Amino acid sequence: MDLNALHKLGYGMYIIGAHKGDRLNGQVANTVFQITSEPPTVAVSINKSNLTHEYIMATGVFTASILHEQTPLPYIGNFGFKSGRDVDKLKGVNYKIGNTKAPVFLDHATAFLEAEVVQNVDVGTHTIFIGRIVNAEVLTEDKCMTYEYYHEVKRGTTPKTAPSYIAGEKGGKE
Amino acid sequence: MDLNALHKLGYGMYIIGAHKGDRLNGQVANTVFQITSEPPTVAVSINKSNLTHEYIMATGVFTASILHEQTPLPYIGNFGFKSGRDVDKLKGVNYKIGNTKAPVFLDHATAFLEAEVVQNVDVGTHTIFIGRIVNAEVLTEDKCMTYEYYHEVKRGTTPKTAPSYIAGEKGGKE
Repeated sequence: MDLNALHKLGYGMYIIGAHKGDRLNGQVANTVFQITSEPPTVAVSINKSNLTHEYIMATGVFTASILHEQTPLPYIGNFGFKSGRDVDKLKGVNYKIGNTKAPVFLDHATAFLEAEVVQNVDVGTHTIFIGRIVNAEVLTEDKCMTYEYYHEVKRGTTPKTAPSYIAGEKGGKE
Repeated sequence: MDLNALHKLGYGMYIIGAHKGDRLNGQVANTVFQITSEPPTVAVSINKSNLTHEYIMATGVFTASILHEQTPLPYIGNFGFKSGRDVDKLKGVNYKIGNTKAPVFLDHATAFLEAEVVQNVDVGTHTIFIGRIVNAEVLTEDKCMTYEYYHEVKRGTTPKTAPSYIAGEKGGKE
């Protein structure tokens, strides 16, 4: 069994926004996907140890900003390799408060979605949050960054808490 | 609310294989995604009206062949716009019976996975099947076809039973 096959799966790159009262946070995710068209529903897989998980559990809402291909690595690093428990990830970042009261991140976003959670699925280390779309907007005509592009062209790496982390993966900088 | 934002989500393109006794079937899907790394687990969203849904429900196994970028449209059309109830989609197609007894489709595949379902999530029109990986193999070094590439370069369309179908979508041939 060659788990490098999992590297061949196609994904985009997203910043997931969440809030709990006045506290706001965001994190990188690559597993955002539409699951039904009627009603428009998406799902996202979030590690249970993440602050964003705690916030989505508390408020039942999340946003997803879809990153375009030219997103600089430091922007992704800020949201992907730090915890909102240690630093304020929103410092210096351009965002607005969405209809859901969660932050919508506007830098390098080609579109964004907002969703209200209708179902939580416990899948062990992660929860899949299934959310009904309550707001959506296209911001630019740019292509979304694919996870493959992030790895192969940008030479980006995957944190251990990601669903798609594979120990000893090629090209990692960790 | 502009649901064209959903078109910006990134996906790959896959043929999902399933069986029920001696009967074999396959269908196109774009929503295959890894949800945990330990143990390696993937999920796929399948329309309840599809024959593949009936087969996965019956046997609790599925395969996913990851299509490479140069996959010809007629190959996708055979699996995506026909029902295994009407035609034998496997006629003239190169496949093998996997460890799960479901068919693994080898034409135009850059890698494949086999999974045993550990959880079904009812999400209305679709079921999300969550499967533990029991077999995986990389077949070629090709890039996977992205859903965006399928739409924009190949000018492919989306059937109404897909999770990502959007009525009146641009560029559709239906």
